[in-house]
Amino acid sequence: MDIAEWRVKIDALDRQLVELLNQRCRCAMAIGVLKRGGDLPIYEPLREKQVLHQVAEANAGPLSDRALQHIFERIIDEMRAIQKTEALGEAASRADGYPSAVLPDERD
Amino acid sequence: MDIAEWRVKIDALDRQLVELLNQRCRCAMAIGVLKRGGDLPIYEPLREKQVLHQVAEANAGPLSDRALQHIFERIIDEMRAIQKTEALGEAASRADGYPSAVLPDERD
Repeated sequence: MDIAEWRVKIDALDRQLVELLNQRCRCAMAIGVLKRGGDLPIYEPLREKQVLHQVAEANAGPLSDRALQHIFERIIDEMRAIQKTEALGEAASRADGYPSAVLPDERD
Repeated sequence: MDIAEWRVKIDALDRQLVELLNQRCRCAMAIGVLKRGGDLPIYEPLREKQVLHQVAEANAGPLSDRALQHIFERIIDEMRAIQKTEALGEAASRADGYPSAVLPDERD
């Protein structure tokens, strides 16, 4: 196989990666909603450690555990940022149209 | 679904991501071998731009193009590092047992 043919393979893998990452993001967003409902913290260092540990367990190479850890740290960072943005958006829409200290469920 | 159930889904997705990333790595390593054989540069900014463009094209959300770009920049970085390490390892094994300035194909 020449370089162009390997790149066709990489492009197909990248499309699958995009799809899986978006599926993962939908799960993280669902967890974000549950966390806000239960007043749980968005940042959970123990869960993040567990994710990285499981990634290393699943790794059969050729990527090193360290390389995968770097990639998954970025994935986790981006998903946590989305959970935070969603939380802010929800708070803003709850407060929308009301004086900033008065939330809709407090007005009656 | 509760948080624990969503996490079971995430863990399954992560195992698939690990497998796809390792497949992608094998492709990148094959390209690395071809590049060294053809004396081509490991860093190819135009190809990297193309990868990021295609990732954005394939993106149906909910991840933003920007979040995916951050994740793929990390993936590309790690794979480029492996191509470089492989190149060094190959040069080292070629030079193994010979004075550092003398490569095996130069000794006869």
